[in-house]
Amino acid sequence: MTSGDRANEQRLFFEDLHVGQRFAANATYTVSEAQIKAFAAEFDPQPFHLDAQAARATVFGDLVASGWHTAAITMRLIIEGGPPLAGGTVGLGAEVTWLKPVRPGDTLSVHGEVVETTPSQSRPNRGRVTMRSETRNQLGDVVQVCISKVMVPRRSPASGA
Amino acid sequence: MTSGDRANEQRLFFEDLHVGQRFAANATYTVSEAQIKAFAAEFDPQPFHLDAQAARATVFGDLVASGWHTAAITMRLIIEGGPPLAGGTVGLGAEVTWLKPVRPGDTLSVHGEVVETTPSQSRPNRGRVTMRSETRNQLGDVVQVCISKVMVPRRSPASGA
Repeated sequence: MTSGDRANEQRLFFEDLHVGQRFAANATYTVSEAQIKAFAAEFDPQPFHLDAQAARATVFGDLVASGWHTAAITMRLIIEGGPPLAGGTVGLGAEVTWLKPVRPGDTLSVHGEVVETTPSQSRPNRGRVTMRSETRNQLGDVVQVCISKVMVPRRSPASGA
Repeated sequence: MTSGDRANEQRLFFEDLHVGQRFAANATYTVSEAQIKAFAAEFDPQPFHLDAQAARATVFGDLVASGWHTAAITMRLIIEGGPPLAGGTVGLGAEVTWLKPVRPGDTLSVHGEVVETTPSQSRPNRGRVTMRSETRNQLGDVVQVCISKVMVPRRSPASGA
């Protein structure tokens, strides 16, 4: 399902995941001023994401990344270096909280934990896994927390489900 | 705080927003196959977002947009055509649920409603507003629901806060 270096890794099925299981995505992402502006121009064109000068007059006081940019970078880090889920990382939804701004030059990493596993009531061949991911900057400050629900196939169908 | 056509519109302050207030963003966004692939290559590089052929063997059966791409497009539609909040749309967090896939050629629109307004306990010059936004495709299907919390300045500081 995936290509490249990760193809030969062991894929994780629903049965392989348990509450309290932690992972640190084996990747970092340094976000540049140009990337912040490009994302904002396409998806969140507001002065505090587009222009350092204009940002001075805003609540942030300086250029900051769109929260949705931080969320997208977090997804990239999870796909690049997070747990290799069988069938891919198929999100059903996510609750994102932005705690601190992300600024040009910040280097982000992701640290996650499984907080819930729920077998599907209707489909014996899959389950829902809830993960809590912290996105941290190079100082260790948590810039974003994301509680995401992903669909994960079972290795063997649940009996009696 | 914003530029262009929207600069002269009346900005909305905390006092101007009330529970039940609805808005339909005055904009639509048609997402192309190239855009789906480009977003995925940068932020969510998985087969079902990158390659129509490879997507056939996945749970989606065909190329679909990353949920984070849908979320980012929704933000764009809100900024372009949603309520012009004083100070900009500054998100504190958001709960996103992806209900249906977004496919190449889909045209998205956003329909929102204020669901909660909470004066800040600590800062008399602002409040928190919770909005529920539905992102719909050209058939009227809801592809995403987003409950977002935004910080909105008050026109006049709250007395006694």
